[in-house]
Amino acid sequence: MSKIEKMVQSITPRDDDFARWYTDICTRAELCSYSSVKGCIILRPYGYAIWELITAELDRRFKATGHENVMMPMFIPEGLLQKEKDHVEGFAPEVAWVTHGGDEQLSERLCIRPTSETLFCDHYAEIIQSWRDLPKLYNQWVSVVRWEKTTRPFLRTREFFWQEGHTAHATAEEAVKETLDMLDLYAEFFENALAIPVLRGLKSDSEKFAGAVQTFTVEAMMHDGKALQSGTTHYLGDGFAKAFDIQFTDKDNTLRYVHQTSWGISSRSIGGLIMVHGDDEGLVLPPAVAPYQVVVIPIAQHKEGVRDEAVKLVEQLKAVGLRVLLDDSDRMPGWKFSEHEMKGVPIRIEIGPRDIKEGQCIAVSRDNREKTAISLQQVAKEVPVLLAELHKRIYQRAKRNLEDRIYDVDDWESFVETMATVPGFIRAGWCGSPDCEAKVKEVTTATSRCISGQDVPECALCVVCGKPARHSVYWGKAY
Amino acid sequence: MSKIEKMVQSITPRDDDFARWYTDICTRAELCSYSSVKGCIILRPYGYAIWELITAELDRRFKATGHENVMMPMFIPEGLLQKEKDHVEGFAPEVAWVTHGGDEQLSERLCIRPTSETLFCDHYAEIIQSWRDLPKLYNQWVSVVRWEKTTRPFLRTREFFWQEGHTAHATAEEAVKETLDMLDLYAEFFENALAIPVLRGLKSDSEKFAGAVQTFTVEAMMHDGKALQSGTTHYLGDGFAKAFDIQFTDKDNTLRYVHQTSWGISSRSIGGLIMVHGDDEGLVLPPAVAPYQVVVIPIAQHKEGVRDEAVKLVEQLKAVGLRVLLDDSDRMPGWKFSEHEMKGVPIRIEIGPRDIKEGQCIAVSRDNREKTAISLQQVAKEVPVLLAELHKRIYQRAKRNLEDRIYDVDDWESFVETMATVPGFIRAGWCGSPDCEAKVKEVTTATSRCISGQDVPECALCVVCGKPARHSVYWGKAY
Repeated sequence: MSKIEKMVQSITPRDDDFARWYTDICTRAELCSYSSVKGCIILRPYGYAIWELITAELDRRFKATGHENVMMPMFIPEGLLQKEKDHVEGFAPEVAWVTHGGDEQLSERLCIRPTSETLFCDHYAEIIQSWRDLPKLYNQWVSVVRWEKTTRPFLRTREFFWQEGHTAHATAEEAVKETLDMLDLYAEFFENALAIPVLRGLKSDSEKFAGAVQTFTVEAMMHDGKALQSGTTHYLGDGFAKAFDIQFTDKDNTLRYVHQTSWGISSRSIGGLIMVHGDDEGLVLPPAVAPYQVVVIPIAQHKEGVRDEAVKLVEQLKAVGLRVLLDDSDRMPGWKFSEHEMKGVPIRIEIGPRDIKEGQCIAVSRDNREKTAISLQQVAKEVPVLLAELHKRIYQRAKRNLEDRIYDVDDWESFVETMATVPGFIRAGWCGSPDCEAKVKEVTTATSRCISGQDVPECALCVVCGKPARHSVYWGKAY
Repeated sequence: MSKIEKMVQSITPRDDDFARWYTDICTRAELCSYSSVKGCIILRPYGYAIWELITAELDRRFKATGHENVMMPMFIPEGLLQKEKDHVEGFAPEVAWVTHGGDEQLSERLCIRPTSETLFCDHYAEIIQSWRDLPKLYNQWVSVVRWEKTTRPFLRTREFFWQEGHTAHATAEEAVKETLDMLDLYAEFFENALAIPVLRGLKSDSEKFAGAVQTFTVEAMMHDGKALQSGTTHYLGDGFAKAFDIQFTDKDNTLRYVHQTSWGISSRSIGGLIMVHGDDEGLVLPPAVAPYQVVVIPIAQHKEGVRDEAVKLVEQLKAVGLRVLLDDSDRMPGWKFSEHEMKGVPIRIEIGPRDIKEGQCIAVSRDNREKTAISLQQVAKEVPVLLAELHKRIYQRAKRNLEDRIYDVDDWESFVETMATVPGFIRAGWCGSPDCEAKVKEVTTATSRCISGQDVPECALCVVCGKPARHSVYWGKAY
């Protein structure tokens, strides 16, 4: 089968087989490719361009809030990993170990960072001496490795790309504030850059980060009703500080331990983009992270003046800061339409001899395929409006999908039945006991996604055991 | 000793002990810190900010010339590394091996990429089928690992940061052109962004990349007369294509092997910045890669109006796109002067009550400490001029250092004597024999840095054996 046929051939319909539809988009939109390294993917130019835009959006937000980028080594000596007891228990079973450098066996094994708390703590112990050195608001953009058994492109791979923030503060209050501020930053990023609405809340103890006092999360709902944990922020307390002896001389000349946080968002957010916005024609990208926000396709481009007008159009759009692709390849227009729909380009502009005569072009929005005739004089003004409207539309659609699929349930039978038959989240009371939580997982495979910040009504009961509820929890099946 | 005293304490003078001066700058300017991982460094915020600017400068150039970023896995299966014979011979002795994932031994060892030709070739074999798929102009920004015995910050570390370009072309001519174009791009980058003049030329066979047909290099001269290989571009021919079976159907329907290139610049360029421009007060940064191009220091900042005027100044400078730091901390001005000189900030602006009365501020250039009074109305116009002049001055100074230290020598005795006593490069004829090259290395520890593109006079002789010279070569001791 030729490449052209493959490209215009439709993908598995989303409602027939969501998992195959997902991987079809990953490969057909050329986001990634499987590699010869089991469980690792190759980010192809289009997929990597999306990741570059995601990193730029986040990095801008981090820097605006006073964070600085650094770069730690990719290795953690075994002894360093073991310093914080809970942390090593959580991560040791899934790290990759380097045992040899060239032909020589290393005297101490090194793991490849699964996360870098231990490296940051080791560094902080060296550079933090006085209250003057605080806070330290560091972040790094790296890949990390976790030896997962089952993997899926973007969602779970042995090597994945992320940012990890690591901060140290003089007081617990400051560190808690940072933990919550970063959670808000993440939620704002998902909503305004990725057009993905999220629930934010606290993780239960069984779901929290290894070594954290508290883990907060932003959870998104995919089109199939499953949850995607999309970003987490951790309040680490002073546990790491004690394990790594990170002390500072405070203003009153007393030695105190720092209080720390860490937080991360990864390349799985690309998986979220696919599963929240994609449709049967392929990807649908929010403009902020679309490598090309507009593709201009000349129709009957061999005819005099058509290509020139298309080039002028492109220049007008670039002049207002848009990312624009001119597709003047020798493919047929229909092939180009399919290809750029597959790649989720937000706006396609068609311009042919008749349009030019009428002094206009036709803009087609990727999400609803609505066509708008735009005067050639007005494109620089109108196209940004169309992009903003598209963002709003796909956000609202995703928000409805989230809100419509949150079910309030108050008895165990309905809980089990709903979880078995209706995709989505259940909001229900929980007494706080790990046994009840474990029972939910065992019976339904769902987990507590997050504890909502809302007050629990006095009369509310735990959906599992019927005792008074201490928390209102969102439960769901997750990727 | 307190931190303040450490900061104003002077570093080892450059001419007393160049090596100690170098590491003093690395740590005092807070570029990097030693880590608990032997041979690996931590890039601190200031050092990483320089690297971010270097990557931005290069990335912009790569994209403008049609290159796309991708991301390969960090692992190479042992079998894949072994596919190209010369390549594996060159790299296997210095790779780090992953043997275990969690508790389980891997069925095939994975090395951490020392460079990624094999991964790109494996991918190219999958995605290249037709002449329509060519050229592929890929690049990636990653860290790589080489298990070096002796390490020095930035210059040689077990993990280092770089970009690696990997391209595939339909013809040898195109690939050779890419190899030379990228060499020119590198030279232009060094001169215009880093203010570092370079020699460009061909590597001898013994110095070329493992698996390449030809390796080209840009070589810079450090303040102490030693060479720093600063970037290399490799013409790989079709050797990798044959080993990995990367064939395409050409326009005439014939199956052909692609011709490939690879090229890289690494974080050692930060070492070059230090050793070319630095002085006894610390770093001197060219404006293009200075995290702060200007630092504004209010004098007697507690006096009414001083801080306000300083803030206005900062805003004016930011408005014209400059990176500006306002240092209104409670340190003494003298301490601040030393600190920002150590960090190589190109322009320092002092503004105090008397200046304000006179409607001016004082700009001090980092390299020559020249003071310029600038009207407060003119700063946005004048400061960019001062920055451009500084760039030009430090480039010219580096160029003189390079040119003045190239010695033309035509007999072996003078060669040995010059190399032993005068730091710099020797330009001399070479017959092309590996034996003569080896003898130079054995007797003088110098190596052939590059073969100049200039024609060799007919009468020229090999400086080692006295036979007719085939090449004019730059010889030198290198980092």
